[in-house]
Amino acid sequence: MAKIDVLVLGPLALDSLETPFGKAENVLGGASSYAAVSSSFFAKTGIVGIVGNDFPEEHWNMLEGRGIDLEGVEKADGKTFFWKGKYGFDVNTPETLETRLGVLEHFKPVVPDSYKDASVIFLGNTAPEHHLSVINQMNKRPKLIISDTMNYWISSVKEQVLEVVQKSDIALMNDGEARQLFETPSIYSAAQKILAMDSKHAIIKKGEHGAVMYSGDTYFSAPGYPLEKVVDPTGCGDCFGGTLAGYLSQQPEITDHVLRKAIVLASTVSSFNAEGFSHDNLSKIDMPAIEGRYAEFRKIVEF
Amino acid sequence: MAKIDVLVLGPLALDSLETPFGKAENVLGGASSYAAVSSSFFAKTGIVGIVGNDFPEEHWNMLEGRGIDLEGVEKADGKTFFWKGKYGFDVNTPETLETRLGVLEHFKPVVPDSYKDASVIFLGNTAPEHHLSVINQMNKRPKLIISDTMNYWISSVKEQVLEVVQKSDIALMNDGEARQLFETPSIYSAAQKILAMDSKHAIIKKGEHGAVMYSGDTYFSAPGYPLEKVVDPTGCGDCFGGTLAGYLSQQPEITDHVLRKAIVLASTVSSFNAEGFSHDNLSKIDMPAIEGRYAEFRKIVEF
Repeated sequence: MAKIDVLVLGPLALDSLETPFGKAENVLGGASSYAAVSSSFFAKTGIVGIVGNDFPEEHWNMLEGRGIDLEGVEKADGKTFFWKGKYGFDVNTPETLETRLGVLEHFKPVVPDSYKDASVIFLGNTAPEHHLSVINQMNKRPKLIISDTMNYWISSVKEQVLEVVQKSDIALMNDGEARQLFETPSIYSAAQKILAMDSKHAIIKKGEHGAVMYSGDTYFSAPGYPLEKVVDPTGCGDCFGGTLAGYLSQQPEITDHVLRKAIVLASTVSSFNAEGFSHDNLSKIDMPAIEGRYAEFRKIVEF
Repeated sequence: MAKIDVLVLGPLALDSLETPFGKAENVLGGASSYAAVSSSFFAKTGIVGIVGNDFPEEHWNMLEGRGIDLEGVEKADGKTFFWKGKYGFDVNTPETLETRLGVLEHFKPVVPDSYKDASVIFLGNTAPEHHLSVINQMNKRPKLIISDTMNYWISSVKEQVLEVVQKSDIALMNDGEARQLFETPSIYSAAQKILAMDSKHAIIKKGEHGAVMYSGDTYFSAPGYPLEKVVDPTGCGDCFGGTLAGYLSQQPEITDHVLRKAIVLASTVSSFNAEGFSHDNLSKIDMPAIEGRYAEFRKIVEF
């Protein structure tokens, strides 16, 4: 039996953020921190990533305290990946003010033996060559491969991004990325192209507008949660992917019904994340809170 | 008994359009053409507006052929309002290439006596002073006042826009306009401000992302329909408002349930409109088509 259910690949980072609701300096960030914490509500989760020797012990302890396995996180000499970003009125698209790769520059992901039988892998927002490397290091093809990406990789290494999409069961990306990757104004067309590449499901995240899933002849739309304040949307997409991975790893079969439930749970966890800077709010919620908001989603769409 | 159920106020126009899917020159446009046709699926509808002597007879005949009352449309010497716009990959926001006001420049709306007892008025996208003028000309306060606006009026005559919102039962606007009108990044906060101004319901249109309604303690989110091709989104917001007006005019009581149904019908009619240039597709659909797609919306949100 695998030591973990879900392998999450992605950077751990320190972020400095400015949003219409305030500022935060040098806080915990990175796709894998958000995705692993979200997955950990549902399943035993391990991270493959890297930190520098400036990575605060409190973050390491917080992650371990949630039962997240950190054997796959390399501690390297140097600085942790740093991202500085600013969100304006349109909270869906941050402006990157500064990126310092630090130890991420020479990172080569190494999957520990104890992760190699994980049933689900979530390939978070990082270089697609790392996605491919992790897939290749697994003992066998996992039950489910979920991949995410971002505009930077589509601009710079599109062919590799497409290779990852082709190998994924669930290709996850946001609406702008889907348009960019397939050079089409139509999300519908982009999703059809994802499905034609062997991905069984295309899930398009739309920030505050929720998310949609295309899979064969079925289409699902989940609303966004009506947040009074989007304090900090950083990591919401990662929470979304992590929740999908964690919840789906516990399901005997990946049916349309199960996927719809997973997407609403993913929207739920992401919405909590947006209500605080960094992990502030994510660290406060528990399963009853998630289930309570999940039930609200049902009322939101009823007609 | 009133001769019409729904009074639609708004420009009739000739549009030249360019979208990623093609071009159209000098086609029928204007908020009231889209809104009145949409309303006419459900209710007897009349237009208050103006055309120049270049307005093609075929458009006049098409509108009359749908049973739309045109007594409120002034035929003036001069050119019909002309708008030239272009849509890029982001189909939600057109770029205005040219606007020629023509006869609209000196337009003063005159409500015919036979319209003055209409139970519902839809104040389409036009100068808010015209909105206020039409409200004042009615014999008594209609059962329901639905108002729409656009960024141009918010920038130029914000106080009047707010006065119209205050007088409306349903304030309709898109998400960017709501943010602009109340100077907040949060749709939630903008909607609360609309409700605090006496509007009973704030309905925010989000283009391809659907629409949401805030009213007191209830929140509803309707998805967008997954269109393969958004051939021409011009008029979709007007179709949305017109459908609301037409459907709601036939309901004995405006309950939360009735409003939710109205919003999904409005999304349905708008989605058909986006599938063709100008009125091309809108003119082809009928109630069975609307009901068929309405039923699809139910499956889209099911979880």
